[in-house]
Amino acid sequence: MSQERIAIIGGTGDLGFGLAVRWARAGVPIVIGSRDGGRAQEAAARVVAAVKEGAPGPVSVEGLANAEAAAQASFVVVSVPFPAQAAILKSIAGSLKNTMVVDTTVPLAATVGGKPTRLVGVWQGSAAEQARELVPAEVPLVAAFHNLSAEALQDLKHPLDCDILVCGDDRAAKERLFPLVKLIPRLRPLDAGPLEMARIVESITALLISFNRRYKVPHAALRITGLPE
Amino acid sequence: MSQERIAIIGGTGDLGFGLAVRWARAGVPIVIGSRDGGRAQEAAARVVAAVKEGAPGPVSVEGLANAEAAAQASFVVVSVPFPAQAAILKSIAGSLKNTMVVDTTVPLAATVGGKPTRLVGVWQGSAAEQARELVPAEVPLVAAFHNLSAEALQDLKHPLDCDILVCGDDRAAKERLFPLVKLIPRLRPLDAGPLEMARIVESITALLISFNRRYKVPHAALRITGLPE
Repeated sequence: MSQERIAIIGGTGDLGFGLAVRWARAGVPIVIGSRDGGRAQEAAARVVAAVKEGAPGPVSVEGLANAEAAAQASFVVVSVPFPAQAAILKSIAGSLKNTMVVDTTVPLAATVGGKPTRLVGVWQGSAAEQARELVPAEVPLVAAFHNLSAEALQDLKHPLDCDILVCGDDRAAKERLFPLVKLIPRLRPLDAGPLEMARIVESITALLISFNRRYKVPHAALRITGLPE
Repeated sequence: MSQERIAIIGGTGDLGFGLAVRWARAGVPIVIGSRDGGRAQEAAARVVAAVKEGAPGPVSVEGLANAEAAAQASFVVVSVPFPAQAAILKSIAGSLKNTMVVDTTVPLAATVGGKPTRLVGVWQGSAAEQARELVPAEVPLVAAFHNLSAEALQDLKHPLDCDILVCGDDRAAKERLFPLVKLIPRLRPLDAGPLEMARIVESITALLISFNRRYKVPHAALRITGLPE
């Protein structure tokens, strides 16, 4: 585990920043990626500030432009708004050596001016399957972290209560991600099947947002019941 | 509650039979509907046999042909395989007076020869929205019970562990269903938003089936976390 280094492409956004905070706290070296290297450094400093107090060990967070960030990591987590996903994947495709990609994109209609409780259709079936087309075939790709509240992640005092449904066609890649998920307290990684299941997992985000609105809560999430311990 | 009477159209099928068993046990008068009145009576007798021992109160279950069953109930639960849904709804449409419809249909690809972990596309967006077009406009319609394991329902010794996501455009109709859901131990009804959210809720069934297969468990289900008690 200690050799892993996670680049978070779009780490200045809410979900990416939240993941950076949680993993940095757990001692994983983080590289925040952003289109603008300066903004990435700024976000890295904010992560350090948020985490430093009470961190059990050393905290390592730096900020770089997206492609440089991707080139330096064993995991590249892509956490960008749906309309930016394709262009950003193309821009980092050449930098994905000895790494695997974790796509977190949800094609919420809100990202193109619609409602946050609806999705837009993606020709390939899901944002994850679109990502698969844009990342070099030899780079393993999984999809995960769709159903987490970005705000809950950022608030280190907030106890999370969520299963992380991991989709992908490469079983070994899914299992490589599991220990990183478990580094964040109270998240449980589950193998949700082939990448095409991201069609369902991505859509659950819209359902959870609708629960947040209807029940006036900040962080609806989900657990799968009936599984072995 | 004591005045409610539930017709289960397709009550000879697995999910319908399971709902009949659980509600009959709770003392709700049940009418099993089937295309064939004789098979409906047979299923009704099986429900009585399954429930009688240990039932806290009187058990009332009869069997009738679908349209007659629908005509006699305050709730009409439609629990039929996706390819049969449209024809059966048309066949009972004239019998839906003073009642509301609860559609449970999931357009699993398995029902048309495909995989149980995939769905077929429904032009209207979901089986529930297709149902809405086929049921007279003045009859309230909600969609629910998609994510329950039929086998778990039928086994009265099996403790259920599932939220029931209820979709519909008529809030009062959704709330009318809630007490009936709560009559089944450990089910929690949740308002999952407008009928269009059935697109997501129906698809979750395919996800749960895939968990059953991958984790070799019989009854994966789901809970939404982070909601008020």
